[in-house]
Amino acid sequence: MVNAMRIAVAGLGTVGAATAALLRRNAPILSQRAGRRLELVAVSSRDRRKNREIDLSGVEWVEDAEALAARPDIDIVVETIGGSEGIARALVTAALRNGKHVVTANKALVALHGQELAELAATRNVALAFEAAVAGGIPVLKTLREGLAANRVYEIHGILNGTSNFILTEMRETGRAFDDVLAEAQRLGYAEADPSFDVDGIDTAHKLAILTALAFGRQVDFASISIEGIRSIDPTDIAFASELGYRIKLLAIARQTERGVEQRVHPCMVPIKAPIAAAEGVFNAVVAAGDAVDKVLLVGRGAGGGPTASAIVADLVDIASGRIAPSFGIDPRHLLPPEPADIGERVGAYYLRLKVEDRPGVVADIAAILRAQGSSLESVVLGGRSQGLPVPLLLTTHDARERDMRQAVAHIAALPSVTETPCLIRIEGF
Amino acid sequence: MVNAMRIAVAGLGTVGAATAALLRRNAPILSQRAGRRLELVAVSSRDRRKNREIDLSGVEWVEDAEALAARPDIDIVVETIGGSEGIARALVTAALRNGKHVVTANKALVALHGQELAELAATRNVALAFEAAVAGGIPVLKTLREGLAANRVYEIHGILNGTSNFILTEMRETGRAFDDVLAEAQRLGYAEADPSFDVDGIDTAHKLAILTALAFGRQVDFASISIEGIRSIDPTDIAFASELGYRIKLLAIARQTERGVEQRVHPCMVPIKAPIAAAEGVFNAVVAAGDAVDKVLLVGRGAGGGPTASAIVADLVDIASGRIAPSFGIDPRHLLPPEPADIGERVGAYYLRLKVEDRPGVVADIAAILRAQGSSLESVVLGGRSQGLPVPLLLTTHDARERDMRQAVAHIAALPSVTETPCLIRIEGF
Repeated sequence: MVNAMRIAVAGLGTVGAATAALLRRNAPILSQRAGRRLELVAVSSRDRRKNREIDLSGVEWVEDAEALAARPDIDIVVETIGGSEGIARALVTAALRNGKHVVTANKALVALHGQELAELAATRNVALAFEAAVAGGIPVLKTLREGLAANRVYEIHGILNGTSNFILTEMRETGRAFDDVLAEAQRLGYAEADPSFDVDGIDTAHKLAILTALAFGRQVDFASISIEGIRSIDPTDIAFASELGYRIKLLAIARQTERGVEQRVHPCMVPIKAPIAAAEGVFNAVVAAGDAVDKVLLVGRGAGGGPTASAIVADLVDIASGRIAPSFGIDPRHLLPPEPADIGERVGAYYLRLKVEDRPGVVADIAAILRAQGSSLESVVLGGRSQGLPVPLLLTTHDARERDMRQAVAHIAALPSVTETPCLIRIEGF
Repeated sequence: MVNAMRIAVAGLGTVGAATAALLRRNAPILSQRAGRRLELVAVSSRDRRKNREIDLSGVEWVEDAEALAARPDIDIVVETIGGSEGIARALVTAALRNGKHVVTANKALVALHGQELAELAATRNVALAFEAAVAGGIPVLKTLREGLAANRVYEIHGILNGTSNFILTEMRETGRAFDDVLAEAQRLGYAEADPSFDVDGIDTAHKLAILTALAFGRQVDFASISIEGIRSIDPTDIAFASELGYRIKLLAIARQTERGVEQRVHPCMVPIKAPIAAAEGVFNAVVAAGDAVDKVLLVGRGAGGGPTASAIVADLVDIASGRIAPSFGIDPRHLLPPEPADIGERVGAYYLRLKVEDRPGVVADIAAILRAQGSSLESVVLGGRSQGLPVPLLLTTHDARERDMRQAVAHIAALPSVTETPCLIRIEGF
């Protein structure tokens, strides 16, 4: 057997600690599968005293994470510190520059600096692997890069944030409001104290940027993603969606169109029968569509120590076995420029929730505006009436162009009879 | 760029022809992903005149498939002839022996001779890859071998035969009988003229044997699989399952138990909410459960030219890139012996369909037999009565040991009031 692969884990939060534990627990089968021992040599973390309930005997403790990048006795640095800048970025850059392989779970870092880091790895002839950065334990990057390598992939869509999916599932099952369920998710540890990365779609967009680059062979392009979160979703929307045979999901969607690459993150109504709709609660799901294979669906746990460590250690086994693939599937210098497509050109159906004054002619006014913008109503439900107070008006449209629809919504919002900001949700057929 | 990888495709049926077409259609992206050209050098097939609607200009036509194994101008042989013996086996063996990589879609060959062939590949230091042999376009072998390499996998279950799943789905949706739907599947080209490999569970078992070997690091062991097909499933069973909140699926199940490895293929009632139940029609689905990742579900097309060619060409890209993994995940000489577990020890619930004479005391007799064998009834439905003719009696039991249940069924079948062979279906919770 060849020499052991010497590993350092930087950051001992949930993911780093689970990685260290998994390397120890499954050491014998990992050695068999990698053809060599995976040896945890050093760890770094700010707080040494915290009880992590893992056995780190024989493992060196290093105060300064960045120092790991310079040590000659380390072959691979595992970065689980997080954040697109600061120590994480400095450590990863220094490690690659020093000819060390890097495995990271850091989606923000890869979404923002993936191109630069992949090029650095390629010039140093080392691996930069980040399976854990997208969809946790589901090997979706490997599937796109290798399993579907024969395909021209033309679409990906997925549920990539377990927190948002948990909140939407819980809202549907209990009828409770967003804020209420978010507070519960925070108590359960499913949501952070500052939940904005999760519920505002940023985390999903980081992951989508990585998927898009890999699937379409293009430079990672986080900046062009159109992002909306789930804060405006209301129990009314969810109940109405169910009645119509839909689920509301926070989706990441990337499509190769004739106009370029469309990348968007937003809540979506999807048919209950769509494969993606089956992923409930904290689960993640991804559908990739390719010209030879048609559609492949992957579902599993997108977060948590065990699943994320599973992805990190799989990357370590690949590297130790000599199965080293370019980070984004091809030589990073050959990745195409991003070519973002304007999502104003999207054609599809829409759901619109309005609050309107309950008087004659309101629906007719709205229908006229939609018609003037080339859209038309598919269904209209006027909510429970109560003594002259504003009532909810729920609409769905036939296919329309996004640009026209937005213009129509702006006109509708300006009507004196419309009393609240409208909520627009796209309907995707899949 | 390094030299082209020179490929021969043996067999030009649906899969072989689709592989040749895909290599041509996606040649530019395949070169980028593999880091070298994938060049189709030669094909072999019995009938040269058949119109396959693929462009084979510049490709040499060879009459004798086995001759491909000896040619110095070929690096990889793709075998799509099929069958566990005969030309396919001879060709694959000769190609490996001559130091050529082999990619095959042949599940029967790998299920029966996988150990011997994997050892031969290892000693010759070449790849033997067979992603296309299991679940068509779904990269389930790569997922088990690499994507979940960090895990101790303890269970796999899946729907691995599209023909059977199509028949069961169609029976449920239309209420029609097995024979009727089978005939339709044959007309549509979803089922062979001789459908026994598909509907009797043999094809599913071939695939399960391969999955089990890979997931549990054991020698492939087709012979120990307990196999039942779907011929005895009746529209009554399907309707009753739906009423109880179940679907009937032909499942492949492998479990690592304390008693050894359980491998079985049989129709199963699974909860409608179980992830696997979502795969309908010709789709395949596989769930793998590992100690770190928990459960991962993969769904996609399990057969057909495009999806199967997708898997074959993915193997070719891996090999051309130098990403060569042992066929069953570890050095084949270290695979553990099979250690089959007696499925008589299975503990679970059962559904039992009987035809009984419609007279007092029949249900009591049956309940007594079940009780004597340590089982008990969960639900009983006596079918529509009609002038003294035998009526269907549908039962479900609480958890019981399979051995005891079978004994009970033997006793029940022997009752004078039971007029037909009982039909026993396992209920799995997942």
